[in-house]
Amino acid sequence: DFMNALTEVRPAYGVSEAELEEAVRLGIIPYSPHIDSTIEEMMRVVGMIKEDPNKFSTSVLFHGPRSSGKTALAAHIAMQSGFPFVKLITPADLVGYRDDFAKKDYVHKAFADAYKSPASILILDDFERLIGWNPIGMRCSEVMLQALTTLIVSKPPKNHRLLVFVTTSRASMLKMLEIDMDFAKKVAVPSVSSLDELRTVLRESRVFNPEDINEAVNLVRQDARTDKIGVGIKTVLDCIFEARAGGGPSAEIITTFSGLLVEKIQEMQA
Amino acid sequence: DFMNALTEVRPAYGVSEAELEEAVRLGIIPYSPHIDSTIEEMMRVVGMIKEDPNKFSTSVLFHGPRSSGKTALAAHIAMQSGFPFVKLITPADLVGYRDDFAKKDYVHKAFADAYKSPASILILDDFERLIGWNPIGMRCSEVMLQALTTLIVSKPPKNHRLLVFVTTSRASMLKMLEIDMDFAKKVAVPSVSSLDELRTVLRESRVFNPEDINEAVNLVRQDARTDKIGVGIKTVLDCIFEARAGGGPSAEIITTFSGLLVEKIQEMQA
Amino acid sequence: DFMNALTEVRPAYGVSEAELEEAVRLGIIPYSPHIDSTIEEMMRVVGMIKEDPNKFSTSVLFHGPRSSGKTALAAHIAMQSGFPFVKLITPADLVGYRDDFAKKDYVHKAFADAYKSPASILILDDFERLIGWNPIGMRCSEVMLQALTTLIVSKPPKNHRLLVFVTTSRASMLKMLEIDMDFAKKVAVPSVSSLDELRTVLRESRVFNPEDINEAVNLVRQDARTDKIGVGIKTVLDCIFEARAGGGPSAEIITTFSGLLVEKIQEMQA
Amino acid sequence: DFMNALTEVRPAYGVSEAELEEAVRLGIIPYSPHIDSTIEEMMRVVGMIKEDPNKFSTSVLFHGPRSSGKTALAAHIAMQSGFPFVKLITPADLVGYRDDFAKKDYVHKAFADAYKSPASILILDDFERLIGWNPIGMRCSEVMLQALTTLIVSKPPKNHRLLVFVTTSRASMLKMLEIDMDFAKKVAVPSVSSLDELRTVLRESRVFNPEDINEAVNLVRQDARTDKIGVGIKTVLDCIFEARAGGGPSAEIITTFSGLLVEKIQEMQA
Amino acid sequence: DFMNALTEVRPAYGVSEAELEEAVRLGIIPYSPHIDSTIEEMMRVVGMIKEDPNKFSTSVLFHGPRSSGKTALAAHIAMQSGFPFVKLITPADLVGYRDDFAKKDYVHKAFADAYKSPASILILDDFERLIGWNPIGMRCSEVMLQALTTLIVSKPPKNHRLLVFVTTSRASMLKMLEIDMDFAKKVAVPSVSSLDELRTVLRESRVFNPEDINEAVNLVRQDARTDKIGVGIKTVLDCIFEARAGGGPSAEIITTFSGLLVEKIQEMQA
Amino acid sequence: DFMNALTEVRPAYGVSEAELEEAVRLGIIPYSPHIDSTIEEMMRVVGMIKEDPNKFSTSVLFHGPRSSGKTALAAHIAMQSGFPFVKLITPADLVGYRDDFAKKDYVHKAFADAYKSPASILILDDFERLIGWNPIGMRCSEVMLQALTTLIVSKPPKNHRLLVFVTTSRASMLKMLEIDMDFAKKVAVPSVSSLDELRTVLRESRVFNPEDINEAVNLVRQDARTDKIGVGIKTVLDCIFEARAGGGPSAEIITTFSGLLVEKIQEMQA
Ligand SMILES: Nc1ncnc2c1ncn2[C@@H]1O[C@H](COP(=O)(O)OP(=O)(O)OP(=O)(O)O)[C@@H](O)[C@H]1O
Ligand SMILES: Nc1ncnc2c1ncn2[C@@H]1O[C@H](COP(=O)(O)OP(=O)(O)OP(=O)(O)O)[C@@H](O)[C@H]1O
Ligand SMILES: Nc1ncnc2c1ncn2[C@@H]1O[C@H](COP(=O)(O)OP(=O)(O)OP(=O)(O)O)[C@@H](O)[C@H]1O
Ligand SMILES: Nc1ncnc2c1ncn2[C@@H]1O[C@H](COP(=O)(O)OP(=O)(O)OP(=O)(O)O)[C@@H](O)[C@H]1O
Ligand SMILES: Nc1ncnc2c1ncn2[C@@H]1O[C@H](COP(=O)(O)OP(=O)(O)OP(=O)(O)O)[C@@H](O)[C@H]1O
Ligand SMILES: Nc1ncnc2c1ncn2[C@@H]1O[C@H](COP(=O)(O)OP(=O)(O)OP(=O)(O)O)[C@@H](O)[C@H]1O
Ligand SMILES: [Mg+2]
Ligand SMILES: [Mg+2]
Ligand SMILES: [Mg+2]
Ligand SMILES: [Mg+2]
Ligand SMILES: [Mg+2]
Ligand SMILES: [Mg+2]
Repeated sequence: DFMNALTEVRPAYGVSEAELEEAVRLGIIPYSPHIDSTIEEMMRVVGMIKEDPNKFSTSVLFHGPRSSGKTALAAHIAMQSGFPFVKLITPADLVGYRDDFAKKDYVHKAFADAYKSPASILILDDFERLIGWNPIGMRCSEVMLQALTTLIVSKPPKNHRLLVFVTTSRASMLKMLEIDMDFAKKVAVPSVSSLDELRTVLRESRVFNPEDINEAVNLVRQDARTDKIGVGIKTVLDCIFEARAGGGPSAEIITTFSGLLVEKIQEMQA
Repeated sequence: DFMNALTEVRPAYGVSEAELEEAVRLGIIPYSPHIDSTIEEMMRVVGMIKEDPNKFSTSVLFHGPRSSGKTALAAHIAMQSGFPFVKLITPADLVGYRDDFAKKDYVHKAFADAYKSPASILILDDFERLIGWNPIGMRCSEVMLQALTTLIVSKPPKNHRLLVFVTTSRASMLKMLEIDMDFAKKVAVPSVSSLDELRTVLRESRVFNPEDINEAVNLVRQDARTDKIGVGIKTVLDCIFEARAGGGPSAEIITTFSGLLVEKIQEMQA
Repeated sequence: DFMNALTEVRPAYGVSEAELEEAVRLGIIPYSPHIDSTIEEMMRVVGMIKEDPNKFSTSVLFHGPRSSGKTALAAHIAMQSGFPFVKLITPADLVGYRDDFAKKDYVHKAFADAYKSPASILILDDFERLIGWNPIGMRCSEVMLQALTTLIVSKPPKNHRLLVFVTTSRASMLKMLEIDMDFAKKVAVPSVSSLDELRTVLRESRVFNPEDINEAVNLVRQDARTDKIGVGIKTVLDCIFEARAGGGPSAEIITTFSGLLVEKIQEMQA
Repeated sequence: DFMNALTEVRPAYGVSEAELEEAVRLGIIPYSPHIDSTIEEMMRVVGMIKEDPNKFSTSVLFHGPRSSGKTALAAHIAMQSGFPFVKLITPADLVGYRDDFAKKDYVHKAFADAYKSPASILILDDFERLIGWNPIGMRCSEVMLQALTTLIVSKPPKNHRLLVFVTTSRASMLKMLEIDMDFAKKVAVPSVSSLDELRTVLRESRVFNPEDINEAVNLVRQDARTDKIGVGIKTVLDCIFEARAGGGPSAEIITTFSGLLVEKIQEMQA
Repeated sequence: DFMNALTEVRPAYGVSEAELEEAVRLGIIPYSPHIDSTIEEMMRVVGMIKEDPNKFSTSVLFHGPRSSGKTALAAHIAMQSGFPFVKLITPADLVGYRDDFAKKDYVHKAFADAYKSPASILILDDFERLIGWNPIGMRCSEVMLQALTTLIVSKPPKNHRLLVFVTTSRASMLKMLEIDMDFAKKVAVPSVSSLDELRTVLRESRVFNPEDINEAVNLVRQDARTDKIGVGIKTVLDCIFEARAGGGPSAEIITTFSGLLVEKIQEMQA
Repeated sequence: DFMNALTEVRPAYGVSEAELEEAVRLGIIPYSPHIDSTIEEMMRVVGMIKEDPNKFSTSVLFHGPRSSGKTALAAHIAMQSGFPFVKLITPADLVGYRDDFAKKDYVHKAFADAYKSPASILILDDFERLIGWNPIGMRCSEVMLQALTTLIVSKPPKNHRLLVFVTTSRASMLKMLEIDMDFAKKVAVPSVSSLDELRTVLRESRVFNPEDINEAVNLVRQDARTDKIGVGIKTVLDCIFEARAGGGPSAEIITTFSGLLVEKIQEMQA
């Protein structure tokens, strides 16, 4: 029961970061095989950085469209890692600092803290925002760009181990900045893609009963005039909540849900 | 009686912001069905952010041409929401601050204040001016752009609820900045469009008597040589005031009104 | 008698600003009907801002070629308004301030002062210089641009009334900056245009006697090979002064005047 | 005797500025009628600013190619003016100041000092360098540009009189900056142009005897293969000095002079 | 035995820089004749700077694709040099400094320290990052660029000797900055190129036994569909570690290794 | 004997600048007639500035390809001048200063010191680096550019004499900056050009005996497949030193020398 699961107490992990828990507040719905395989592959990398005698650090880029679950996945893996130090760095953490130098110091300190722990995971969330990317003129903060790209490839002190996760919905920006090759691993996090995947999400969300799910899926297929969803898991869940919030009989909720989702599908295709 | 209504005392709401009242000083004239439906839809969003167990925050963009009533509509909904904390942030609030860093701090503090309340609405009015947009060279304040876009998508602390309203008359600028997709909802606020809508505005403004209204509308149609008004509600009301201020017999006021409005219609079409 | 009038004591007005008087030191010569009609129209706006129950502030743009009398006209209307607070803000007032932030503070303070008065007129003279416009690269001071455009459209505190006059000889720059639509009213202030208008100016200036005026006008028409003057009133007056300063018999003064003016006519056409 | 004249004591003038004297150290050789006519015309402007009841200030631009004598002419006229306050502002005066703000303050102070005197002349020498013009990217100091252009058109306090002279060898730059029209008068200062003008310069410099002058002029005409000199008076004098410095019989000095000047003629034509 | 060698204690050298050792932690595998010849040539340069009576300083640029072993080679040669002062300067050393001025001071101090020693080697690692190169807009820190390029060509004090090593994976950037000619020597450090070179690396790494190596190489050739590897030695070693970390029977490790390497081969070719 | 000469004590000159001596440490080999004629011409300029009653200052630009001997020549002439004050200003002198303002102050102070002496020579070495030229975007330090170009053309105080030497290997940059015409004299310093010039250099360097020189020159001609050397004297000497440093029999040294030089010849032609 996915919805109830949200109120369950999660198993404790070494790092008391409410933010990490918040990032996966709606859980990880295995709506497609790629989700489990991604988690598995990442747990292998986690294992290597934990124990390999020759490999002490690496970096992984989680890239994919908006709302596809990049942050949740990175946070989920970090929480499963058992590393004694895990820290999520988001753009919101930086807003309060006066200027780019102060922002850089904050991030630098996070790495310095991580270096003190025998093994750490740092998640640099929304990389494009961390560097202050502006698509007009394709500008960004040089100070943050230089600091972050340097820190991502730098090595922790001798015998310390560090795993850096970076999330972005602008893989093309990283290519233009020619820093995409700085990541040892790249993990694609796609949108909810097929009607079957949508069906799974609806089922797991427990808002609809089985027949309703079929009707909802058919309505979406019919109105969107496509079998391709192309909308991130976060947005799909949002549509469910909004439809439910509208209230009324389940038929109405289905219609509202379908309307909201189709709008998003079309927005994405535009 | 619309004109008299302006002097009535409005029902008290939790937040003592004269500015909000000022923003809807001339009331909300329901000159078109889209106005009520927009208010309804927004009240549903307000309800969801108030109560949904899974959805604690969202953002809405009010976009439309100059003077179309964006600020008044956002302020009206915020005043109806019953949220304990409502704040309007306008470019004029920022003029006095020394530089962009001080401006950012002001906005950041507004968000911090909102986070302290269990449920809040923040209105970021005239987004293009808040970020200091300059169409020549398509430049803006990077500091404000990064801070505002980060704050708009950031989440309030656990179990706190936040609704962010943003108004702009430059939707295309937000597209170029690639931040239009950061808004969960987008609400179009169009100009007064048809002669019928114009008729309603004239009627509700109680400056003209019924026959005069017909004559005024005919005069406008005739002189503008179009059935499309395309002028914002605020400008239409301004033309009424200016015509009235000119004084003289009602025929003269009608002529003056029509002249002023037609000039605006043509200015808009140029 | 225009020249003598310059030494007359002007009727006192509420605001002790020698600068305003200085701006119309050479008086307002009604060399064309548009001058009286412009003054009339503006006095209507002045009246509306003084008394309308719904309209408390507006802004007017005086635009026209160099030396056409924009500043003098705006100052003249302000002095006639009877508003208790009138202030002229010119680029020269700002030169002494260290940087754009200090300049902004100066202008901001002028608005703050105006807000304290029940009714005020602020004249922002030479807008292009106030914002530090540089045609090469089409750059200007972002700080001043943002502050001024925000202040121009901002409203005074409740029940206070404010009229903002702005002068510029670069209307096209305002269009490029997309701020021309921020002005509720736009007033064109043209150059001295026809030979008849020139004749009136010469007559009112009392430097020449009637026959000389005819000769001067004929000389100008002949040498300039056009009936179009296209030179601002300020420049025409300058040519008169310079010719007079040369001294000698009136025939020589006429020749000198004609020579100087024709040079200016041709400079303007180039 | 031009060369001896250099050691004569000049008549005292009100302002103790060794720099002004230095600027005309090599005197003003009347090698062409335009020199006397320019001086005459300027003395008329000087007279007008001294006494006209309606005209208290104006500005003059001295423009011409490198080394053509712009600074010397402006300084010469200023010294002849009899104005109680005369000041020459050169780029070298500004080098020592920390940044553009300090440079602006220096110039601003010069104007403030001038305003204190009943009548003043300010010479802004080498305008392009005063504003820090860089032809690559066509950039300059915005701070200096805005301050200087504002000060040039600003008026002195009531009943004070100010004449501003500006020199530049980049008239086209002023056109691009759209400030060429800010000058009430423009004075062209051309190079030494014809062989006859060259002959006069050689004669007045008293380095060569009459036959030598003929030979020198013929040699130049022959080697340069043109009748057009196109080299500034300052450069012509430099070639004379350098040839003389080489020493030897007069034939050799003539050859050296001709060689140096022809090189400059060709450099200018390239 | 290459893998065991990693734990051996290295022969002491004059400079206690753990960083230098860390840079060659995985040793120098002589997988191609060019490696020995490069080292030889550089030892000759080292010798010259040690002893030549006319040559006291020079600079060498190590350039090549990512991960090709540039830093390790430069560090290896520096450690073999026997110079009393050797220092490695990396981008990570600079992250903590506030701004470019502080970064410049750090580097400047390193040179000043080197100048104090009779003979020194400075390694400027990752030159493109040291100067903060951003390929978008092709910008970099002017402060660092000017300081580094000046220091690289500057001479140590009389009778002091200095060898500067610079590494970069962006030789083309140096060409664009027109500083490639500032280096007296340029050393190309290529990727692992042929299957034979790959075989040598696999053999020296002692992870696979002889038959397995053959199978691995065949698998790579087959899957990559090319005989050209084009992947840096560091990346090849990483693939070995990751494959080993996956665990399981040697056949599986071979498959994993081949898969990982082929992915990198194709990434490089894209 | 050129090589031995390096250890000879140079004749003392008024200014105790080890740097000047260092700049000509390898002497001035008269490998071509242009060298003596350049020195002669410059000594004539030196003489003029020493004594002419009308000419107190001038500036000379030494321009030519990399390593052609510009700095050495300028330093040599300055040392021969007998001027009581001679100072060499190099980019390395400026590295330690915090920012461009501090660098400017350093240079300004050098000029101020020079102004105190009755006669001075200032050498501004590597002008492109002094102004921080960056070919990408063709940017430089505006502060340094403005200060240096102003100081170069400024005059010393009355009766003081100043000669400014500037060296650059980017004459085209000075043309783009439109400051090439600010120099009264321009001196071209070419590379070693012909095989005969090369032969002279080899002979004067005394490393090879006569037969070896012939062989070396033939080898170069043969391998470079051109009679044009096109490599600066400094680089040619470097090749000699490196070849000698390799040691071994003279045949080997010749081969090494030829190989190194041909590489440089080809690098220059690319
Ligand atoms: N399989 C899944 N993978 C990831 N997230 C999931 C999954 N199933 C459910 N979720 C939920 O969906 C949400 C994904 O949102 P998240 O913020 O991680 O997306 P994102 O890609 O980082 O978005 P953005 O582009 O805005 O950064 C989370 O609340 C998460 O709990
Ligand atoms: N239906 C309506 N919707 C919005 N405003 C209305 C309506 N009817 C009357 N008004 C009045 O019209 C005015 C609308 O002005 P408002 O400043 O909100 O426009 P705006 O679109 O924000 O303008 P701007 O583009 O300048 O920001 C307000 O005074 C409001 O009271
Ligand atoms: N009809 C008129 N309108 C305006 N000014 C007049 C008129 N008649 C005479 N004048 C005089 O002409 C002068 C106009 O100069 P003013 O500085 O106002 O022009 P301007 O357009 O502001 O010039 P600029 O483009 O330089 O700002 C004033 O001295 C004014 O007294
Ligand atoms: N007729 C003349 N007009 C001007 N200067 C003359 C004349 N005759 C002789 N001179 C001398 O020629 C020199 C002119 O140099 P000046 O510095 O004024 O030229 P400039 O045009 O200002 O040069 P630049 O373009 O470098 O600023 C002065 O020394 C002056 O004494
Ligand atoms: N022949 C070799 N040459 C260089 N490095 C080698 C060689 N053999 C093994 N290695 C090892 O390979 C690694 C090379 O990595 P190194 O960081 O020097 O590469 P790089 O070219 O500097 O990479 P980057 O482009 O990221 O700076 C080192 O760990 C080194 O010990
Ligand atoms: N005829 C010569 N002219 C100049 N230098 C010579 C000559 N003969 C020998 N040399 C020696 O050659 C070297 C020339 O180097 P120098 O640094 O002056 O060249 P440069 O052109 O300034 O180089 P760069 O372009 O790097 O500034 C000096 O060491 C000098 O002693
Ligand atoms: Mg995310
Ligand atoms: Mg609004
Ligand atoms: Mg004006
Ligand atoms: Mg001059
Ligand atoms: Mg490296
Ligand atoms: Mg040099």
